[in-house]
Amino acid sequence: MHPSRWGDPARAGGLPDGARGLVEMVFGVHERPALDAVTLPASGLADDLLESLRAVVGADHVHTDDATRRLRTRGKSTPDLLRQRSGDLDDAPDAVVRPGDHEEVAAVLAWAVQHHVAVVPFGGGTSVTGGLVARREGYAGLVSLDLVRMKRLLGVDRTSMTATLEPGLRGPEAEALLAAEGLTLGHYPQSFEHATIGGFAATRSSGQASAGYGRFDALVVALRVATPRGEWRLGTAPATAAGPDLRQLVLGSEGAFGVITEVTVRVRPVPAERRYEGWRWPDFATGTEAMRTLAQAGLLPTVLRLSDEAESGLNLAHPDAIGQENADGACLMITGYEGEPEVVEARRAAVAAVLEARGGRCVGAEAGEAWVRGRFDAPYLRDALLDVGVLVETLETATFWSRREAVYDVVRSALQASLGEGTLVLCHVSHVYETGCSLYFTVATPGGDHPLERWLAAKAAASDAMTAAGATITHHHAVGTDHKPWLTREIGELGGSVLRAVKADLDPTGVLNPGVLVP
Amino acid sequence: MHPSRWGDPARAGGLPDGARGLVEMVFGVHERPALDAVTLPASGLADDLLESLRAVVGADHVHTDDATRRLRTRGKSTPDLLRQRSGDLDDAPDAVVRPGDHEEVAAVLAWAVQHHVAVVPFGGGTSVTGGLVARREGYAGLVSLDLVRMKRLLGVDRTSMTATLEPGLRGPEAEALLAAEGLTLGHYPQSFEHATIGGFAATRSSGQASAGYGRFDALVVALRVATPRGEWRLGTAPATAAGPDLRQLVLGSEGAFGVITEVTVRVRPVPAERRYEGWRWPDFATGTEAMRTLAQAGLLPTVLRLSDEAESGLNLAHPDAIGQENADGACLMITGYEGEPEVVEARRAAVAAVLEARGGRCVGAEAGEAWVRGRFDAPYLRDALLDVGVLVETLETATFWSRREAVYDVVRSALQASLGEGTLVLCHVSHVYETGCSLYFTVATPGGDHPLERWLAAKAAASDAMTAAGATITHHHAVGTDHKPWLTREIGELGGSVLRAVKADLDPTGVLNPGVLVP
Repeated sequence: MHPSRWGDPARAGGLPDGARGLVEMVFGVHERPALDAVTLPASGLADDLLESLRAVVGADHVHTDDATRRLRTRGKSTPDLLRQRSGDLDDAPDAVVRPGDHEEVAAVLAWAVQHHVAVVPFGGGTSVTGGLVARREGYAGLVSLDLVRMKRLLGVDRTSMTATLEPGLRGPEAEALLAAEGLTLGHYPQSFEHATIGGFAATRSSGQASAGYGRFDALVVALRVATPRGEWRLGTAPATAAGPDLRQLVLGSEGAFGVITEVTVRVRPVPAERRYEGWRWPDFATGTEAMRTLAQAGLLPTVLRLSDEAESGLNLAHPDAIGQENADGACLMITGYEGEPEVVEARRAAVAAVLEARGGRCVGAEAGEAWVRGRFDAPYLRDALLDVGVLVETLETATFWSRREAVYDVVRSALQASLGEGTLVLCHVSHVYETGCSLYFTVATPGGDHPLERWLAAKAAASDAMTAAGATITHHHAVGTDHKPWLTREIGELGGSVLRAVKADLDPTGVLNPGVLVP
Repeated sequence: MHPSRWGDPARAGGLPDGARGLVEMVFGVHERPALDAVTLPASGLADDLLESLRAVVGADHVHTDDATRRLRTRGKSTPDLLRQRSGDLDDAPDAVVRPGDHEEVAAVLAWAVQHHVAVVPFGGGTSVTGGLVARREGYAGLVSLDLVRMKRLLGVDRTSMTATLEPGLRGPEAEALLAAEGLTLGHYPQSFEHATIGGFAATRSSGQASAGYGRFDALVVALRVATPRGEWRLGTAPATAAGPDLRQLVLGSEGAFGVITEVTVRVRPVPAERRYEGWRWPDFATGTEAMRTLAQAGLLPTVLRLSDEAESGLNLAHPDAIGQENADGACLMITGYEGEPEVVEARRAAVAAVLEARGGRCVGAEAGEAWVRGRFDAPYLRDALLDVGVLVETLETATFWSRREAVYDVVRSALQASLGEGTLVLCHVSHVYETGCSLYFTVATPGGDHPLERWLAAKAAASDAMTAAGATITHHHAVGTDHKPWLTREIGELGGSVLRAVKADLDPTGVLNPGVLVP
């Protein structure tokens, strides 16, 4: 991945013509090329430390060159990209170390403890909450612990329908290994093409098909973790009453408690059929009420998402058509069904009956297929918009159904008030539960002279609004460093205290991802 | 509840005639009346402490009389009953205190910290793992914190389909309050008639209908907890990525981290129809494979349980017919469906198609209805058997499907080997998941001269077998003091260390349920 852009350079196509016209009209265009030529700070790790690190994993697996370090600098939030684009690479690691298995991860941690070096576990590098921006003050250096060599499918249990995966597998790599066994994980976050199994677990990722397959935290049945105090294995049964569920303490721990080295997940047969389609709704409220009906009836499709009026109007679900006329207006819903043909057909019929009764109108397969084609592409569009001076970022929350409308209103208002005129705030619901749903906002606004500061102020206003409304600060983007100031508003001062206590117990010298997650 | 017996004395019927004949034949009969006349140890709490406790909650809500203290002594495991029956009441609390709301619970905890008094939270008193047997050495006394006055339905959110309940509500009380709103929780453990909402949460209870309604831990969306360090509220959304899910640290914490004072749970509409029926299977393995098929197809009834050959032969699912001839032999499965009539019918048809294709034979509604009538009665039968010198106890585990048969074999073998000839070991599967299932064993054996020691040795052998086979030490009975010696085999030494760290953080002077759960 390019250090200040998303994904595969070959797929970064610039702005579609229609979008460019729209952008010029709404935001104006001010080309802002990225400054990627800037030199990195030199590696600050002492030679003897580097030498001893090479002894742990082999010289071939310790890297200090600029290109490798640059690619392990920060994640892929818009603030991360803006900092990279402005030439700020201060957060570059001193070295990138690539252990090959659990034992080598453990050995790297032992080395880090011995020499008091900060360690940032690195999977796909797609964090959008500053999860890779660890504190380095007080440490002898900072290394990126890159899991790229740990890509094995360690085992498949066909009877229990579980698979054990190494953390460095990217989404498509994991799916390819499972597909060879006729299996699928079914976890498709927007970052799917780059993010890794370890990252999904460490951040409680949620995929676009989680209505059907479940959030990643719900898919995990067992974990192996390397901590500074040794190996930790969890997960003896699908469910247990043997005290608190400690798996749930590792899930979402963002590399601050240990490095996840194996993840055992629930798998399903590769679906024989996939069917996606679009539905139109007169307004967002009517559509979300229908989603609530489905969730509370236990009648969910595999994919279920609904864009609000603004997002539907912009047709973001169909990036290559942005700016084209969206004549039928109102709100676009995508429904998807995966499984055996008769299951797909039965589920589709049952869902369609509810949606029709609630005022939805099926607009056929084309809208669904278009969404499937473009589902991982929005970050490329963000780069193209940043190139012309438009600030684009996303943020998300979740809340109970009874607060859905209020949370939607206050977060939109906070963003609009902070960013001022000429700001677009789009929203969709893409994850529903019996008791509530997620709200995923996309913001586009002129970057101005200080785009980073503009965004940080807006993000703070949105987070304030979420916590004041009793919603969560993040449904599936984790805490990192960016959400940390709001974390104790959500989990309480005691929650923060408990996280510090667990951190101190598992990582007594504090070498793991210092400054991330734990308040 | 009677201190050394289960439930409502009016329903304690002694052995049915058929059962008595069978018991005489298999075990012999040696009447062993309980010794309930024994006097309790005097309350050891100093007068000034009692006086200050009365100042906290009012004199009416502090009890030191023998009858009240006796009823708060230990729980309802067979070892608990045997100890009570033998006249051992050494674990009696010095006083029983009944706070009326969250603030009074907090005030009692502050009092306990100030005076270093051990506090045992008490809901229904139905623990079967020694969860109410706290350590008292080193404390100025031990009080039972009885939640019996906290029985309010604090709120219903019909849009989100959640309800907020106080912890002292027993199962039927909670259901009655919800039924007045047209709602149900659907949580029916065998202890339903006596156990409480707080206890369900603190022990990760699982109900007989959890295939349809979910385990209790899966029903909880928010919690309020009184800890020695203050109030702790958790739960802002159905799901979040704001770090580890700390709700899952409170669920299963067994009163060792705090006292749960409010529980917000998912609720459903009262089902319009309930339909139960029986199925016969040629053997346990074929029936469990059919259950696995249903679970992995996402096609579960509301209730699904299967007795093995031994349990089916004894007809324990039908206690008033024990000892009658069970002519059609083989294994009995109960399926139950609850919901709107058309949903019940559709689900039943789909499930029945799978069961028939897998070799099951529907034997109609009678077996299902009989199970419903007797579903909460087994503990009464245990009392009647203890009266005639037969030791009866249950234990349970859960494992992944691929280990189901091996775990079943090794636990049965361990129990048989420990208890010797004349021992009956029965088993059923009553909770299934996509990746595995529970195994619930019932053991009947002659008590002999030392029934307590006999059982403790057998229990240890069974727990050893479970952990050696990689299964959990408990699927829904919690840890208490009885399972604690095996806990770190399951969660690792680091898991034990984390529990101690959390305990030390939330309860720094260790007054909460000392000796319970935390290894």
